[in-house]
Amino acid sequence: MSEQHNVLNQETITLTKALIERQSVTPEDAGCQQLMDDYLSPLGFNIESMYFVDTLNMWARKGDKGPAFCFAGHTDVVPVGDPAHWQTPPFEPTEINGHIHGRGAADMKGSLAAMLVATKRFVTDYPDHKGSIAFLITSDEEGPFINGTTRVIDTLEARNEKIDYCIVGEPSSTDYCGDIVKNGRRGSLTAYLKIKGVQGHVAYPHLATNPIHKAAPFLAELTTTVWDSGNDYFPPTTMQISNMNGGTGAGNVIPATVDVQFNFRYSTEVTAEQLKERVVALLAQHEIEYELDWIHNGQPFLTDEGTLLEAVNDAITKVNGKPATLSTSGGTSDGRFIAPTGAQVIELGPCNATIHKVDENVSIEDLLKLTDMYYHTLVGCLA
Amino acid sequence: MSEQHNVLNQETITLTKALIERQSVTPEDAGCQQLMDDYLSPLGFNIESMYFVDTLNMWARKGDKGPAFCFAGHTDVVPVGDPAHWQTPPFEPTEINGHIHGRGAADMKGSLAAMLVATKRFVTDYPDHKGSIAFLITSDEEGPFINGTTRVIDTLEARNEKIDYCIVGEPSSTDYCGDIVKNGRRGSLTAYLKIKGVQGHVAYPHLATNPIHKAAPFLAELTTTVWDSGNDYFPPTTMQISNMNGGTGAGNVIPATVDVQFNFRYSTEVTAEQLKERVVALLAQHEIEYELDWIHNGQPFLTDEGTLLEAVNDAITKVNGKPATLSTSGGTSDGRFIAPTGAQVIELGPCNATIHKVDENVSIEDLLKLTDMYYHTLVGCLA
Repeated sequence: MSEQHNVLNQETITLTKALIERQSVTPEDAGCQQLMDDYLSPLGFNIESMYFVDTLNMWARKGDKGPAFCFAGHTDVVPVGDPAHWQTPPFEPTEINGHIHGRGAADMKGSLAAMLVATKRFVTDYPDHKGSIAFLITSDEEGPFINGTTRVIDTLEARNEKIDYCIVGEPSSTDYCGDIVKNGRRGSLTAYLKIKGVQGHVAYPHLATNPIHKAAPFLAELTTTVWDSGNDYFPPTTMQISNMNGGTGAGNVIPATVDVQFNFRYSTEVTAEQLKERVVALLAQHEIEYELDWIHNGQPFLTDEGTLLEAVNDAITKVNGKPATLSTSGGTSDGRFIAPTGAQVIELGPCNATIHKVDENVSIEDLLKLTDMYYHTLVGCLA
Repeated sequence: MSEQHNVLNQETITLTKALIERQSVTPEDAGCQQLMDDYLSPLGFNIESMYFVDTLNMWARKGDKGPAFCFAGHTDVVPVGDPAHWQTPPFEPTEINGHIHGRGAADMKGSLAAMLVATKRFVTDYPDHKGSIAFLITSDEEGPFINGTTRVIDTLEARNEKIDYCIVGEPSSTDYCGDIVKNGRRGSLTAYLKIKGVQGHVAYPHLATNPIHKAAPFLAELTTTVWDSGNDYFPPTTMQISNMNGGTGAGNVIPATVDVQFNFRYSTEVTAEQLKERVVALLAQHEIEYELDWIHNGQPFLTDEGTLLEAVNDAITKVNGKPATLSTSGGTSDGRFIAPTGAQVIELGPCNATIHKVDENVSIEDLLKLTDMYYHTLVGCLA
């Protein structure tokens, strides 16, 4: 362990372990937010618990001035599967070779601990800092994300409360802490398409319309369409068919319909509306009768300049000697709910190699560095 | 009822009703073959019962000389569904407006009765006829057709016993008895194709291979391929996809495989082997990894000239004043098992409008005509 880290950083390790001990499988919080509350209240934070249906959320804020700097994250973890497959009991944090093992160590209880300690250091070092500091914490990020961050954001928007800068603690790193930060995410749009035909007997195809035959040339074109070329920050938009089902099971029956489900991961070069229009135009071009429903899982977002990105870059350079690589790859995160409010959003956390797996673990050295990075980011934005 | 029919034809009606009373739902025979046995034995027929697994079959033959004329048919019927939906109890033959109602009336107990009576008339009128007369009767034509006609044919072939002319009693007619006869049937070939990909997350398509995307251009070409142009007797070969299933159900997973089942109904212009080769070539051209199994349900057959066709044409013209239209359309029949032995095969039976439906029925006038047609066909072939 490096001697350069602030002595207070050791609390990150203690807090990470204390959080892992709380068995907060989605949507359970299991006392994690109470622990954070107990840590933040003495620092002058006002705590609001927001309970929606089955999900406990926390909005904690110190000060009411702008700009508002927010740490966002989740206390819930994914299930452990069979604990017998783990090297150590998943809810008993255990140090092995400089790593803390346990469910949620990397995703993302270590990040939550680092946020708490960085905040304590910052408000101690800069009691008269500008703006305010907030925590937006949910316990359903790994679940259906219906009663979590999105509901808290709705509540804040309803009372006109704004977030200016947001650090999401998702494990963004690959080989070492801070090698990669996510400065955006692709949008996600899912189509549920039912292509209609006319049922019949395979021996009398002239009396039927085979919906799979109608689908084939349409799908051939859909799967080879270039939707955009991406840009400096986003790879090109992709489309993948995840499910396709048609047929009665009988070998001599032409089915009446075939169902096709497909998903776009899209860049900021197109909009969800444009993608929908192009799919509908393709269906019309192929003279297909259909029913079509869409679920818009999240808009793309991008933070390609501004105070927060500068502060993060400076903070990481201070710790690692070089800035992070910016990336917008990977799945969705709760950043998609926060960015549309106009906030600058960056995701920065530890390495993700073991997340959602058995023997999930996080490097202690990385957690100490992450605490420093969060601290310097606060300094860059609010000092 | 016309006065021209032979007085013995009335027995066709009695026998049809007696057969309908026997509840011979596939694979049950329910005593139908015993009834036929009792009718044929006094006429000099030698009866062989052939029981395979769950299926009773009958091979009855009078004489051992060639040519061998064979009536082929089945005693089994399809299920009745809910009897409450029937106008009359399905196993109580009932006359309504000149029709006999009951399950199997048209498919094909009326035909069996007409065959019996025509045979009795013929051997009475022509005691010194040439060749022999045979009956090949099964009770699994409506079922999996594994232990029926195909096993009897195997037995006959093993002992080098040949059929020269074969009348199948399937209900071939549309508007009146004898308007259409089937002088052939298309072949049927079914493919079970599994297209292989590499499973993955829809957010990382570069790490996966989507089998539905691989399938789409292949299927687009498969469904638009012209396999042949048919000929004077056969419509062009058709291909229909009956089932297609791929996907885990989850919207964010690229599936590992997709299953596609398709069926060819093919003319005598191609062979099953040629169709298989062309499908395999198309798969190779699209660089698809796959597993492929085939089931060959039946070769096509055609009887486009010869003694039997002439005799049938003359017989129908004698009764109706004009010959039948020849057709090879429709599904498969047991003729596919008999024709490959070298037999001339014609399907001639009553109207098929009500077969496999509630209130199945057959016209009494048609059954009398059918008895005359079968009688005159015997005369044309063996007198």
